[in-house]
Amino acid sequence: MREKFQKYIEDLQDTICGALEAVDGGTTFKQDIWERPGGGGGQTRVIEDGHVFEKGGVNISTVHGQLPPLMQKHFGVEQAEFFACGLSLVIHPKSPMVPTVHANWRYFELYDPDGNVASAWFGGGQDLTPYYLYGEDAVHFHTVCKTACDLHNPSFYPKYKKRCDEYFYNAHREEGRGIGGLFFDYLKADENMSMDDWYAFVTSVGNSFTEAYIPIVEKRKTLSYTDAQKTWQEIRRGRYVEFNLIHDKGTLFGLKTNGRIESILMSLPKHVQWHYNHTPEAGSAEAELVKVLASPKDWV
Amino acid sequence: MREKFQKYIEDLQDTICGALEAVDGGTTFKQDIWERPGGGGGQTRVIEDGHVFEKGGVNISTVHGQLPPLMQKHFGVEQAEFFACGLSLVIHPKSPMVPTVHANWRYFELYDPDGNVASAWFGGGQDLTPYYLYGEDAVHFHTVCKTACDLHNPSFYPKYKKRCDEYFYNAHREEGRGIGGLFFDYLKADENMSMDDWYAFVTSVGNSFTEAYIPIVEKRKTLSYTDAQKTWQEIRRGRYVEFNLIHDKGTLFGLKTNGRIESILMSLPKHVQWHYNHTPEAGSAEAELVKVLASPKDWV
Repeated sequence: MREKFQKYIEDLQDTICGALEAVDGGTTFKQDIWERPGGGGGQTRVIEDGHVFEKGGVNISTVHGQLPPLMQKHFGVEQAEFFACGLSLVIHPKSPMVPTVHANWRYFELYDPDGNVASAWFGGGQDLTPYYLYGEDAVHFHTVCKTACDLHNPSFYPKYKKRCDEYFYNAHREEGRGIGGLFFDYLKADENMSMDDWYAFVTSVGNSFTEAYIPIVEKRKTLSYTDAQKTWQEIRRGRYVEFNLIHDKGTLFGLKTNGRIESILMSLPKHVQWHYNHTPEAGSAEAELVKVLASPKDWV
Repeated sequence: MREKFQKYIEDLQDTICGALEAVDGGTTFKQDIWERPGGGGGQTRVIEDGHVFEKGGVNISTVHGQLPPLMQKHFGVEQAEFFACGLSLVIHPKSPMVPTVHANWRYFELYDPDGNVASAWFGGGQDLTPYYLYGEDAVHFHTVCKTACDLHNPSFYPKYKKRCDEYFYNAHREEGRGIGGLFFDYLKADENMSMDDWYAFVTSVGNSFTEAYIPIVEKRKTLSYTDAQKTWQEIRRGRYVEFNLIHDKGTLFGLKTNGRIESILMSLPKHVQWHYNHTPEAGSAEAELVKVLASPKDWV
């Protein structure tokens, strides 16, 4: 499974970067290959200052070795060897009319002292963060998510949609980071789903990413916008930063377990603003977005 | 002591806001008065888009009531009534040649079930975050800090200077947030220092603030700078945001105990940038700053 999933995310990285470069038309991803002192490494691919994308990364990491103490505590296990690989992406477009997107697909193994797999699971998901809300884009994104889920089990979409709304929640602001999508973790073999079944599910979601996101970019990338709309986007990006640095477990684990800082914080947007007590005008498009973020909607 | 210190910080808020308005010359502080549902409230004073200051706040809060569960855990006490008041300020100048400054002076009381003071202490400090390092400014700031400390005990400056370097440390970046100053906490009455002695010490530091900071602003505010230097400032402000959202106990406690979000996050700069893997040119002024932040210097 390690090799199979690793190969899968390597191919997916190529596919996704190719699709994003094609829709950008102005620049290409630059690759950094890095090694992790404790074992493993990654390929970070970053796009900056394109025609469409202001900043983004599509990163693979494959790490293994002794489980860091903080993760031992988190998983409730003693000293153990582990293996983890995954693809993480965050794309921040220039235009406030094009939503930010985040996705992640990962596989984890823990070993017993004899080197046998003691526990293995998949995790991941994909979610959308618009600055101006086009209802049809939200419906499109969620419909693609649901279609990928329904191939495997009709209960998956409602379950993982709800988890996504719960996870990407800026509790201190009492609002969602965006309009959600899918989020799942600890997908382990049980009587209903083998690891091969979960592999099929996770890769269905991974394969759906470009279909979920690229048509939205195509549709919105040529819309004009004002300076005030750009400012609104940068203020909302502040909320994205707040979520990632205060609440996101992946980011905080990475920072506390000697992950590669620049690959982890690649998720932060290039230009961000914080205004004191900024409140959108009642009835405006900006106020409408905030209202939707305050209580998750069923889009499909 | 509650009333005395509260009166002190109210007067200090007026003094500091007046001094900052005078050096800015372009705008004034706007005041928001707010109430805390659990008891107490505050006066938030914010300056934005002045001639010299891009964004800043000089805030008082006075809160009391039942100790929130997270703080019970932190202080290792059971359910108790508490009182806390303090002045917190963060000032982000426009020009990258003028350093950001942060300061805080606070007083805390915990009560026993009969309403008697079970425990009381002062905390606070002041620290400087330059974007371009003028050695003489660092020496000036630290000299004023040392002079205020030396009035009370020659051991205070080295001790609280070291604590400041340790506290304002971006561990995930392996560098200081700035060039430090003073940081102290849990200043309780003991055989050497009564609470009146600590009051005298904390107010000496508070009274030294304008002398520590304003002359630096006066000296640097008219220097010219390039767009590239402004970009560098905004990238470094990203590190400021990282510290406040990832590491700063005050910020995180505030966010997790229903503090007033806009008063807490007033500390975040207005314009911030994150570039992927930004590295200053070897030998440049920017590289020089990073070198100094990597290992704290003795300035006095």
